[in-house]
Amino acid sequence: MKPFKKITIVGVGLLGGSIGLAIKKNKLAHQVVGYFRTESKIALAVKKGAIDKGTVCFEEALKDSDFIILCSPVSDILKKMSQLTKTKALITDTGSTKTAIAKAGQHLNFVGSHPLAGSEQGGMISARADLFKNSLCLLTPSGKKSAHATAHIAEFWRRIGAKTIILTPEKHDAILAFTSHLPHIVAFSLMAAVPANILSFAAGGLKDTTRIAMSHPKLWSDIFLTNKNNAMDAITAFELSLKKIKKLIRASNEPGLISFLAKAKNKRAGLPQKS
Amino acid sequence: MKPFKKITIVGVGLLGGSIGLAIKKNKLAHQVVGYFRTESKIALAVKKGAIDKGTVCFEEALKDSDFIILCSPVSDILKKMSQLTKTKALITDTGSTKTAIAKAGQHLNFVGSHPLAGSEQGGMISARADLFKNSLCLLTPSGKKSAHATAHIAEFWRRIGAKTIILTPEKHDAILAFTSHLPHIVAFSLMAAVPANILSFAAGGLKDTTRIAMSHPKLWSDIFLTNKNNAMDAITAFELSLKKIKKLIRASNEPGLISFLAKAKNKRAGLPQKS
Repeated sequence: MKPFKKITIVGVGLLGGSIGLAIKKNKLAHQVVGYFRTESKIALAVKKGAIDKGTVCFEEALKDSDFIILCSPVSDILKKMSQLTKTKALITDTGSTKTAIAKAGQHLNFVGSHPLAGSEQGGMISARADLFKNSLCLLTPSGKKSAHATAHIAEFWRRIGAKTIILTPEKHDAILAFTSHLPHIVAFSLMAAVPANILSFAAGGLKDTTRIAMSHPKLWSDIFLTNKNNAMDAITAFELSLKKIKKLIRASNEPGLISFLAKAKNKRAGLPQKS
Repeated sequence: MKPFKKITIVGVGLLGGSIGLAIKKNKLAHQVVGYFRTESKIALAVKKGAIDKGTVCFEEALKDSDFIILCSPVSDILKKMSQLTKTKALITDTGSTKTAIAKAGQHLNFVGSHPLAGSEQGGMISARADLFKNSLCLLTPSGKKSAHATAHIAEFWRRIGAKTIILTPEKHDAILAFTSHLPHIVAFSLMAAVPANILSFAAGGLKDTTRIAMSHPKLWSDIFLTNKNNAMDAITAFELSLKKIKKLIRASNEPGLISFLAKAKNKRAGLPQKS
């Protein structure tokens, strides 16, 4: 892959910062420019080597760029895409829902990406060049013109260590509602349900189960609201599971309960070790 | 604390094995004997140094013992306690529910313990002498005669690194229903709800949230069924949380949703770092 002339990273947090570090490490661009909402964060990103320079001027960040990567929360990605009408640059994003974004990108040289490599520990401070190593990145091309852009963006992700899978935006959102959005909804709800006066008794189980409730509220509000119908379906399916186990406990149905738990355990054992 | 003459560990898995290793390391007994259901597991426990010897004969394991620690699943602890009527030894257990066990122990020199140091990775193979270091151990005396036994058992746990807190068995079970049993119920239910054909898309969030769904089905069936009413109450409280977030998503109520998520995040941030 020929290096890009200038890559613009919009939003230099955990994902944007890690992408910048990986681009520099793998020499994938002559220049990496970061777009920031506030001046105060530019210095750290430059110091850590994630970008060559940063700016709070969107126009300046985009100028002469041949690859734009949007790494802000979904609602901000949508807003920025509406301002990108004139560029011919290759464009992707790292948003966690893809249908609304694909629609916004249909007149651009755009293919959506979703690197499954986030963390509840956001910010440039947690960024690292190997964040995507052996991770999975889902690409969600939409429309007929995107074959070339898809190949180019897939190659980019592979260069920084990710395996890529191609899905429609709709399929992506239906799947992620279960594998990512529902776990977050459950973790936030669980934390909301535990009485505040007994938190000091929390052991490993509660902590693991709710680690992702430390995630960024605005980021996840965007995700749930841009994948509303799928999220509702996933919650409904989960409510049914919960009803089942509640019924088994209420009836003191030990064989039924053990069978329910064993099936869940088997399914959990089948999760990929690293994805 | 004077060393015990002979400590008997009934059930030498993760907890029993770690207790054995910690007893030996801290020289808290002249002899440590393990009771096993099957011969095959004795050799490993002896080899790892968790016990001096093992036996499949319950009578032999108890003979001349002055401290008996029951470390099997709750239903087995209850069964074993019904066979302990003649002993004057100090007795404790490591079961995760305490009301039924306290009732079974009311005519014995018994005080229940619940070390908050388990893991979904069971077995002697995962045992380690420092498992209880800086962990919390809940003691649940019941009745008036137990002050001496409570002090003695508390001292034992402190010697192997745990901080101790004293609670009634009923209070213990009401609290743990939320801080431990509910997270397990939620993790098992979440795993049950995720369609099997999309498990390969699971990333960190689903994995963390369901790690404890790898726990032992029989062990947890015992826990849920011996704490049925509290578990039902906790599920009901959680269902209400879930309904709230579902309603906020359905209504696309962004400020309400962000506020719900932020409150949950704040609560999560207040969990003890190590307990």
